[in-house]
Amino acid sequence: MKITLAHGSGGQSTKQLIEEIFAASYNNPVLDMMEDSAVVDGSKKIAITTDSFVVDPVFFKGGNIGRLAVCGTVNDLLMRGATPKYITSAFIIEEGADTAHLKLIATSMAQAAKEAGVQVVAGDTKVINGNGGIYINTAGVGFIDGLDFSSDKCRVGDVIIVSGNMGDHHAAILSHRMGIKNDIKSDVAPLNDMVLKLKRENIDIHAMRDVTRGGLGTVLNELAEASQTCFEVVEENIPVDNQVKSFALLLGLNIMHMGNEGKLVAIVGARDAERALEIIKQSKYGENAAIIGQVTNGEGVIMKTPIGGKKKVSILIGEGLPRIC
Amino acid sequence: MKITLAHGSGGQSTKQLIEEIFAASYNNPVLDMMEDSAVVDGSKKIAITTDSFVVDPVFFKGGNIGRLAVCGTVNDLLMRGATPKYITSAFIIEEGADTAHLKLIATSMAQAAKEAGVQVVAGDTKVINGNGGIYINTAGVGFIDGLDFSSDKCRVGDVIIVSGNMGDHHAAILSHRMGIKNDIKSDVAPLNDMVLKLKRENIDIHAMRDVTRGGLGTVLNELAEASQTCFEVVEENIPVDNQVKSFALLLGLNIMHMGNEGKLVAIVGARDAERALEIIKQSKYGENAAIIGQVTNGEGVIMKTPIGGKKKVSILIGEGLPRIC
Repeated sequence: MKITLAHGSGGQSTKQLIEEIFAASYNNPVLDMMEDSAVVDGSKKIAITTDSFVVDPVFFKGGNIGRLAVCGTVNDLLMRGATPKYITSAFIIEEGADTAHLKLIATSMAQAAKEAGVQVVAGDTKVINGNGGIYINTAGVGFIDGLDFSSDKCRVGDVIIVSGNMGDHHAAILSHRMGIKNDIKSDVAPLNDMVLKLKRENIDIHAMRDVTRGGLGTVLNELAEASQTCFEVVEENIPVDNQVKSFALLLGLNIMHMGNEGKLVAIVGARDAERALEIIKQSKYGENAAIIGQVTNGEGVIMKTPIGGKKKVSILIGEGLPRIC
Repeated sequence: MKITLAHGSGGQSTKQLIEEIFAASYNNPVLDMMEDSAVVDGSKKIAITTDSFVVDPVFFKGGNIGRLAVCGTVNDLLMRGATPKYITSAFIIEEGADTAHLKLIATSMAQAAKEAGVQVVAGDTKVINGNGGIYINTAGVGFIDGLDFSSDKCRVGDVIIVSGNMGDHHAAILSHRMGIKNDIKSDVAPLNDMVLKLKRENIDIHAMRDVTRGGLGTVLNELAEASQTCFEVVEENIPVDNQVKSFALLLGLNIMHMGNEGKLVAIVGARDAERALEIIKQSKYGENAAIIGQVTNGEGVIMKTPIGGKKKVSILIGEGLPRIC
């Protein structure tokens, strides 16, 4: 069935759409109450985040906008040391979208939510004019039960760890758009396992960020700026899948500005660095983790090249890849 | 300045847009941290809600999409008896949108947030292809410190109160679209004052809903269904502004299906009904409140007409007014 503007009117058609597609997929008692807001258990300290997803294409190798919408928000909660608990799911749908696609997306969201241990507690559905596009906003709430990390806590001497290969999501989306056939899959994934293990093992984490649009170069620059330090990384230590490396070379893309959706960078006290790396490597989605550099005196991001040079890595300037997430 | 896809890339342009338009308007230390999620004080029980806003036009008499996005979400929290505390603000912007408009909208959001006593703690900005459209998602978190209300708690004998005139927002949006000149203004407003006063005075509230898209007829049907009762209302007791009444008559609109953005319906134990009405009437945005009927045995919604008849009021079927909120 095709979505029409009537599905956004707030009347009978909206009710039907919500019941048949969304409530049926998420299937939980809080949501089934269909109230104006969900009432749930809280905690003394909470983390709150929001993200909209406008990725094009909606279905891509390794995932779809629904899995992306859950993982992106769950990961944002984890990055402050919160345990993700609740998520909201708000769809803006262009008329002409197919309800079968919506069903697939909602099912993916439910599966990702289950994997990430979050409950979908509130939702909303709006319809706009257009050509079948689908946009999702998810907001998330997590509980903070200990120290939270923050970007300004990076110190000189800290070690920089990335949790896996860079650029997979970017390369998967771009391959799809350019009609290039390859095996590159998006890395979209919830990072609960590695983050909660690092916390449980009391690893001395100073800051943590997921590496999404803007890429590693942008995140490292933001961390360097917030903590007024310099981030020095070694190019050959940055993990990249061989196929993605070739793809980037071919198209002249800079790995440092390629987006990911299931990778984090952790800034860890030097003494705990090796232990942190081991924990990440043994976690789900962490097998390719690597130590890529350290925090030093100075400012900005410096990359040591294999031939012994040093180059400045900037924040992503200009367009990057539009609608990557 | 016109928005381009580069503003959504997550790099330099996104950073600039966020700093100059959004962070500057909301201006609070939690948001200024620019972390992946906000860490804030929580509470034992919390309410969570989400709503996207796609209203067309973005600016209308009585408000704009920004004020609407804050009020809609704040009101959804209030409707479960929560005290609104935090709100998130996620923009999906079509390329070509004007940054001056974004600035006006963000300023309105900041003002509405101040009026409603909520802090904007997290945000997101995405850009999509298109023609300058602006869509906003807000999610909200509130604290529950006593009983929450819910739709299934309506009982036979309960009294139905609406907090003011029906149909203003609907008529304002439609007047704008049809180019009809009149003085009808949207009622978009946060309802903190009346709800928190009702709670403070321990009014025996069984359920509360804001009357938005779908209109009073849809909300009453949902309440009747959830509580397995019948809602009987008296047509001439339903407050409607004279100009809106004429407008509806002229266009053949049903007041019971016209949307509002600053009105609630409260289902109150009979003993407390008069006192509840007085409290609402003396609250901000409540001067036209009225008792419109009561909960009886049976099912659905019945309206007594001025000539002594009874008619069934249905949920809104079909399109209603697209993109009213």
